[in-house]
Amino acid sequence: MLTLSAATMGETGEFAFLSELLPKLAGGRGVLVGPGDDCAVVAVGTRRLLLTTDALVERVHFERRWMTPHQLGRRAYLVNASDIAAMGGRPRFCLLSAGVPASLPARELMQIERGVAAAAQETGAALVGGNLTRAARLFLSVTLIGDAPRRPARRDGARPGDFLFVTGALGEAALGLRRLRRDARATDPAARRFREPLPRLTAGALLVERRIASAMIDVSDGLLGDLAHVCAASGVGAEVSSSAVPRPPGVDAFDPALAFEGGDDYELLFTVRPRQLALLDRLRSKLGCAVTRIGRITPRATGVRVVDRDGRAHPVSARGHDHFGGPRRSPSRSRR
Amino acid sequence: MLTLSAATMGETGEFAFLSELLPKLAGGRGVLVGPGDDCAVVAVGTRRLLLTTDALVERVHFERRWMTPHQLGRRAYLVNASDIAAMGGRPRFCLLSAGVPASLPARELMQIERGVAAAAQETGAALVGGNLTRAARLFLSVTLIGDAPRRPARRDGARPGDFLFVTGALGEAALGLRRLRRDARATDPAARRFREPLPRLTAGALLVERRIASAMIDVSDGLLGDLAHVCAASGVGAEVSSSAVPRPPGVDAFDPALAFEGGDDYELLFTVRPRQLALLDRLRSKLGCAVTRIGRITPRATGVRVVDRDGRAHPVSARGHDHFGGPRRSPSRSRR
Repeated sequence: MLTLSAATMGETGEFAFLSELLPKLAGGRGVLVGPGDDCAVVAVGTRRLLLTTDALVERVHFERRWMTPHQLGRRAYLVNASDIAAMGGRPRFCLLSAGVPASLPARELMQIERGVAAAAQETGAALVGGNLTRAARLFLSVTLIGDAPRRPARRDGARPGDFLFVTGALGEAALGLRRLRRDARATDPAARRFREPLPRLTAGALLVERRIASAMIDVSDGLLGDLAHVCAASGVGAEVSSSAVPRPPGVDAFDPALAFEGGDDYELLFTVRPRQLALLDRLRSKLGCAVTRIGRITPRATGVRVVDRDGRAHPVSARGHDHFGGPRRSPSRSRR
Repeated sequence: MLTLSAATMGETGEFAFLSELLPKLAGGRGVLVGPGDDCAVVAVGTRRLLLTTDALVERVHFERRWMTPHQLGRRAYLVNASDIAAMGGRPRFCLLSAGVPASLPARELMQIERGVAAAAQETGAALVGGNLTRAARLFLSVTLIGDAPRRPARRDGARPGDFLFVTGALGEAALGLRRLRRDARATDPAARRFREPLPRLTAGALLVERRIASAMIDVSDGLLGDLAHVCAASGVGAEVSSSAVPRPPGVDAFDPALAFEGGDDYELLFTVRPRQLALLDRLRSKLGCAVTRIGRITPRATGVRVVDRDGRAHPVSARGHDHFGGPRRSPSRSRR
């Protein structure tokens, strides 16, 4: 537990703060799901909306030389769209709050805005407004309002016995991040993947609409970190088969831990009741991406474990990104 | 007009960028009012929502020593509520995207969040979610979603012959800002006013519901700057009677220009058709604040003029805040 009297945010960390402290503040008329999930869910008339916000900060999440302003704008939007995907929703309206150094060329800011607007349009949404202020370092804070499905997927729906699935492959964006740190102009698939997340909107919507996903989250903080969020919210444990976790070839050669701990993939991690497995198999071709079974939900007492083919526990701890370098930070991992 | 090929944001300025460039990007299904007004207006089912976002950045908008973390959180919310007031709406849901130095005590961040949540609750809204990231300097970007009235007030509804009104008094927050720069602990009314904006939600809602305001804006950038926005959007000019502009006693003694150019007051500036003057007079007691007639809308060709009692033009130019120190910046005014 936290001792708030003295701790800095660097000592407390993002996860602990958000999970333990913020939820106590929320609630109110029309609030169906408050803080603590990928999106809030609110009622407006007879409709339900998803609300989410996420910011990219220069020197924390990116360096400007890593990508074009247009790509940066796209990225700021797409990481938010991934939160909408994780609840099974569809993006509708987008706001951009930008903090901009006075030295930034106006043309670059225009390209950033165009990137946001283009990515919004491609996913069926519209950039409807924003705010612009001066800041020493560039930040882009996007808020996305989406149409909610009838029963939005949440983090707290997993039960022991559920199977654990992930879309796409993991670790590529983290590999791309490491490449960009050495070569800002890198054009390999991993670098491209970091620059351009692929929010799984089609898969997310279908998995929720057909009630296949009993719990869901997007993998933004790393597989084990986000799995830990699902397990904490659902009051369960999980066992992940290390060999089953899909990763592109380059990841293992560089560092196998990237698939477990690397963030920024924006794939979907979801759980499926055994009786829904057959339905998932029938819908595979409509999801727009691969889905791979990587493990099973267990009782809470077993915690989150990664096992190899022989059933031996794998020495990968349940860590995730924490931009504050809080308690989850491993000493060997650079601060982001 | 802008030459985007070379200009930095410092040269271009916030107003020019937002007014000339951003609107071209917007539009889409369900978007009734896009960028360029105090809020966007969107349709969700049979309901209409107001969407707005605004950020406070350390060293640009405030210094941490000027107020408690709780006051800062309240302020971050209230400046957004003022945008909802300016369209005649009611706040409903709030998101906070915070960028926080690792050195910030977790307790202070908790007080900031509590301040946002408390101010939201007081105005009938709820803090439903947020995002937290590391940043070199503190920033608080709030997004507010509000219920729209049937006909939201806009900036573009003023016509020559309309009377010009303002709620409350002007210049006090700008005076408070100057006092805080000299004494961070100042407790005089002006300093308190800077710390705690008073969004005119009751007045805004009533002025719109009863169709008294033909155009409206909140005075966040200074009277003349925001009046210029109304005039540009409506294609009109305006004549302001300098002696009619209500200001607290301390303002004139310090610098009479504060009432015309000082920002951060978050009063409402609105126009009224002559035939609606009687209705406004009948409703005065229900607005929750004073309203003062300060001038008249004129044809576009006359521009925005400030005249004294004798009808002589006053040497106050139509400037407003620009956090980039863009073209509207006067050399004598410090950058914020």
